[in-house]
Formats: sequence, C-alpha cells, structure tokens
Amino acid sequence: LDINMEKIELIKSGAIQIYSEQGLIERLRSGRRLTIKLGADPSRPDLHLGHSVVLRKLKLFQELGHRIVFVIGDFTAMIGDPTGRNKTRPALTLEETRSSGESYFNQVAKILDPVKTEIAYNSEWLSKMNFADVISLCSKYTVARILERDDFKNRFEQNQPISMHELLYPLMQGYDSVALNADVEVGGTDQTFNLLVGRALQADYGQVPQEVITFPLLVGLDGKEKMSKSLDNYIGIDEPADVMFEKAMKVPDDLLLDYYVLTTDTLEQDARAIIRKDIREAHFRYAFMITEMYHGRQAAESARKRYLQVAGGAAPDRMPEFTVSEPEIMLCELLMRVGFSSSKGEARRNIAGRGVKINGVTVEDPMLKVAVTEPFILQFGKNRFIKIRSDGHA
Amino acid sequence: LDINMEKIELIKSGAIQIYSEQGLIERLRSGRRLTIKLGADPSRPDLHLGHSVVLRKLKLFQELGHRIVFVIGDFTAMIGDPTGRNKTRPALTLEETRSSGESYFNQVAKILDPVKTEIAYNSEWLSKMNFADVISLCSKYTVARILERDDFKNRFEQNQPISMHELLYPLMQGYDSVALNADVEVGGTDQTFNLLVGRALQADYGQVPQEVITFPLLVGLDGKEKMSKSLDNYIGIDEPADVMFEKAMKVPDDLLLDYYVLTTDTLEQDARAIIRKDIREAHFRYAFMITEMYHGRQAAESARKRYLQVAGGAAPDRMPEFTVSEPEIMLCELLMRVGFSSSKGEARRNIAGRGVKINGVTVEDPMLKVAVTEPFILQFGKNRFIKIRSDGHA
Repeated sequence: LDINMEKIELIKSGAIQIYSEQGLIERLRSGRRLTIKLGADPSRPDLHLGHSVVLRKLKLFQELGHRIVFVIGDFTAMIGDPTGRNKTRPALTLEETRSSGESYFNQVAKILDPVKTEIAYNSEWLSKMNFADVISLCSKYTVARILERDDFKNRFEQNQPISMHELLYPLMQGYDSVALNADVEVGGTDQTFNLLVGRALQADYGQVPQEVITFPLLVGLDGKEKMSKSLDNYIGIDEPADVMFEKAMKVPDDLLLDYYVLTTDTLEQDARAIIRKDIREAHFRYAFMITEMYHGRQAAESARKRYLQVAGGAAPDRMPEFTVSEPEIMLCELLMRVGFSSSKGEARRNIAGRGVKINGVTVEDPMLKVAVTEPFILQFGKNRFIKIRSDGHA
Repeated sequence: LDINMEKIELIKSGAIQIYSEQGLIERLRSGRRLTIKLGADPSRPDLHLGHSVVLRKLKLFQELGHRIVFVIGDFTAMIGDPTGRNKTRPALTLEETRSSGESYFNQVAKILDPVKTEIAYNSEWLSKMNFADVISLCSKYTVARILERDDFKNRFEQNQPISMHELLYPLMQGYDSVALNADVEVGGTDQTFNLLVGRALQADYGQVPQEVITFPLLVGLDGKEKMSKSLDNYIGIDEPADVMFEKAMKVPDDLLLDYYVLTTDTLEQDARAIIRKDIREAHFRYAFMITEMYHGRQAAESARKRYLQVAGGAAPDRMPEFTVSEPEIMLCELLMRVGFSSSKGEARRNIAGRGVKINGVTVEDPMLKVAVTEPFILQFGKNRFIKIRSDGHA
C-alpha cells in the first residue's frame, strides 16, 4: 500500500478533530488495507460542495489503496432523523431508500472511483437483529451519555419531547461501525457524537475502536447557514458548468479560504497567499478550479468566458430564443410572455425602473411597441437574456 | 357471567387506585368474559402473603367467570430488573425462567383454580419482534415520560448510571398488555407506572386501554419493610401449618388491620370491629383464618393447639425424636449431639443460664449425667423440644 505522507497531510488538512491522530498515522503506516467508513443519509440524495468535503478526503484514502465503504442508512432512515428541530421526519420506505442510495452512488462517482467504492446498506445487519440483540446493544450505553448529544440535550432541557426510538438512532449508526469492523470513520462536526458512539461500541464488541476524523461544515453562499439544498445556498456537484462557475463566483470573500481548503486540493498556506495577492483573481481562480474539477478544463474555460461576458454587461454567446407570431408587439406584453414579468403593470414598472434593454439599449417608454421583423436581444436586469424572433408567418 | 356486586366490592376493597373505576364496573357488568392480566417476576418464585394480595383479587375475578392470565416475564427477566438499587440483577437464562414459571404456577394453584388459570410467557411475542418492531414500540413513548418512573427519576437526578436497555423494560411489560389485549391489570403500587404504560400503549396500538387496579404492598413481620423473602419478614404460602400459625401470630398490632383486609376476605369494617373488641383474640383469629385458608380447618386447629401449648410452656403433641445408644450420657454432650449447642462449653453455659429442661424441669447442674433407659423430653429455650430415647442396644 501507498504511504504517501503528502496525501496523509492533505487528509488531515482542515480537520477539526482526530481521535486519535497517532492511531490514524499508525494505521496508515501499517501497510494494511484499511476500511474507511462514511455514513450516508439517503433521505438527501442531492450532493453539493458541502458533501464534497468528506468525499474528497475519502478519495485521498482511496488513492492510498484503502477500502471505502459508504453505509447507506436505509434502515435508520425508516425512523427519521432526530434533527433537533423537534419534528419527526417522515419515515422512508425501504424502496425509497434503495433508490436514493443508487442516486447517491451515481453522484459520488463524480468524486470517487466507482469501481473501487463499496456501498453497504445497514438494513443488511440491522434488520436481522431481534429484540434480544437490541437489548444487548442498548446495554452498552447509558441514558445520560446518549442525552449528552447536543440536540437531545437541548430538547430534554427545554422539555421538548424526545421519542424513545430517537435514542436508538446513534446506537444503530454506531453499530454500523461494528458490523463493518471499520478502521476509520470520517464525518462532519455535526456527526462527532455518533462517530464516537461507533468508536465506543466497537470496544464493547471486542474490536479495535475506529479512528474518527471530523471536518467543518461548509457554510453556504449566504455566508450564514450550513450549505444545504433546502436553503438554496448551495453549489451542486451535478450543476451545469456555467451555473457552477457563476455560483462559485458568489462565495463570500471571508469564506473563500474555507472553500479553497475544504473543497479543493489547495493547502491552507497556498490559499492564503492566493487570496492575499488579489481577492478578485482569487475568486476567478477558485471558480475555475471547481468547475474544472467537476466538468473538465474546456467546460471551465467556456464557463469563465461566458461569465466575463455576462458580468461585463454583454450578451452571452448562446441564449434561449423566443418566437412571436405578430409582426409587432407591446413590450410589456412581450415581457409577460417570456416570463420576465408576471403582469402588464409589473412589466411597465420594470421598464420605468430602467431594468429592460433591447439590443443593449435601455428602454425608457413603458408603452413601447416593438417590431419583430428583425431578431433582437431582450435583456432583463443584469443577467437574463433572450433572443426574440418572428416565427416567419407575420 | 356472574355479576355479583358483593365480589366486585371485595375486588375493590383495599385498592389504592383504580384507573378507571367507572370503566372497571362497566366492563364487569358487560357480561363479556374479561382477560385479567398479572405480571409475574420469575426471578422470585417463592410466593408469600405479600403476593397473595393481588392473587386473591384474581381469585375473585376467576369466581366471577373471567379469564386469568399470568404473564411470566421470561423474556424481560433476561435483561434483569431496574430495581432502583443501581445494580443490575444477573440475567436469567430462558431455561431458568421456565423452571421458575412452573414453580410459580404450582404455588399460585394454592390460591387460584389451576384448571381455569392460564400462563403466558412473554417470550412468545417479544422474541418474535425485530429491530423495526422495537423502534415502532419505542416511538410510542417519550424519554421524559419513561424517566418519570420513580427509580429512573431518582437515579437520573443523582447522576447514577441508567443503562439504555433498562428504559425498554417498562415498554416490554406494557406491550404484554397489547399482546394479550388485556381488559384489566392488577398489581402492587410499585407497579403503577408500568401498568399505566400498558394502558397507554394499548391505546397507541388501537385497543381499548386496560383498567388498572393497584393494591398496597404488604409490610412484613418486622413492621418496617415490604414483605420479602430476602428480608426474612415473610409468611410463605407454602410453609407448614404450624410455622404459618406461629408466624401469623407475630403480625405487629398496628398492621393487623392491613393483614385482615389484604390477605383475607374480611371487609375493613368487620376487621376493625374484631380488632377493637380484643386484640389478642383478633391475632388468634387471624392466624387461624390464614392457616385454614392454606392448610384446611383440621391443620389450622392442630396448629392453634400446638401454638397454645408451646406458648404456654407445655411440650407439643408431636416432636422430633433422637436415639442414644449409651445407657447414660453427659447432658452437655447430648445438647451438642441434637444440635442445640455447638460446643460443650456452650452447652454448659446454656444449662447454667437455666435454658434447658428435662421433662419440664429446669436443669441446674451443667455436669449432669442423664440415664436414657426411660424416654424423656429435652426442652431447649421456650420452643424447641426433642424426645430422647434409647436405641435398645444399651
């Protein structure tokens, strides 16, 4: 096996905590093929850069020759996740979790080598456990220790109900490590408690406890919340190159260092130097790097070119087209038809507010009637372009 | 079915709480054959008058024609009982619990009609539950509600460890009511919490919640602690008539009313009148009543007669015999042989202390040598008698 200290340094780069660092290094140096576990939540199959933080660490382990196992919590998803938001998430069916698991695997393949990546469904072992096995599992942990988990603790102290079954969730997740006899588990800091339960349970079941590495949660484009699809502050790893580039250009200045360190192979000191030199250039460089990573160099260059044109106020090379059958049309009517405005009144206000351009020239008359005998470019706000042409019947 | 209001009154007599009294009366009047549940702890197979409190209530239900089901917690016994004494009781094997269950049934047969009494082992349903079933069961209850149970609450507040599996115990016991679709569950006040869990779970599983009746815990002969074999303050329902009578005479004056009400068919006002009239006579009457109940009239009369003789200092009609082969023997040697004294020195001290009689006459000479050509009665202290005779070879 490969014992590449540079890659080991990259694995550790950005980590919040390692339990234990010495143990991790020793195992990586042992020459043994390690089992690296990552728990996946199949109820959230759309992967974004937030997920890529740990996935890219797994890629490094994979490059060193270790065995990567994704545990799809198809069984645990059936009970919903105690999110701390005091509402029970609807339980998924086994079928739904399988289908999400496959979708997850397909997306993961954009980062990891799918041939060398294993998927395990935890229903494989959890569904075989009977009541006596559950009792045995539960006997390994005290109520007080489970209630130390932040979300439980807060809810318990605030007298918000916690269902008994929710307490089983961390035990199940921890038991996954026992079932796999995992050497290392990687996860976000929000998973620290669960990962350490796995570590403790392995010892109770007579195994060598796994090493645990936690990484920070990537803050989203809003600069406030953890990146998530539901908050629409995300960059999806499946998004088109142009969208990815444009979104990546919106990373807040003060988060750019985190994005470099957590989502690319740039080491911290190098990222600091890039940002210190020229913040605008650093943004372009980041956006290019991310787009190239998921779409290749050519697509990244094309996305950069398009971005420069749009950001400079020029129309992009390619844009949607819209055909009109009349020879001429009221501009406010046209704005409604293409979907830029939701009513004629709104369209007039958009024009009056100097938000509409034809062929690059701002329209000032809200009652303008335009001819469509020749195609023209209708621009709405800064970034939205559409080519208008006649359908030929006029 | 029998709707005998007198028996219904007897069932209610002495009850601490009934959830709900109206529901109970309605069910008893419905003409339907009800399922009456009692949970039995197979780790404590020796029944005493403390157990008889609820068993005798079941007998009344049985006489009214209802179905009595003992649930032997063979499955639950495997995890030990959270006693609140902060130590885990050793888990029993399935075999041990079955054997205790049979012993339990044999003793129960002294109070209930064994032909009309059913035994159910909760492993029948609990061992068939898988992890998903356990999750479903657990989801019906919140952590806070389980931790309201007195022993959990105290231990939790005092930061004494509670194992996660202990929290499952009341849910399992409660699920027994669901499995039986029980109409009524009877138990001691220490079981109130568990019985109400059963009531709540039945509602969650779409059943009509069982009526719950709780009875006080019988205080033992020491006048302080709950009757229990380990504290040696008990009257076993399996004990010989003489022992039972003698022990029953030792019930403390201020507990006699409870013993009448909880362990015999005497209604409270009648018991009060008996005790008020003549406390000594009330004790005799109680001891006779209890002995007759478990051994019949003849044995009770014989036990009373013996008691009166012993208490009056006279030798009982029948006593153990001991044969001696020598024609004469040192008294202190004899006291050792029959087991009254553990050494010659102790025997001499017993004699000097005026604790030894021969044929009713106190012996004063510690060095006395006695002839065994004629049988004689050796008395040690107040109550221990033995007949000494020659083996005929002398």
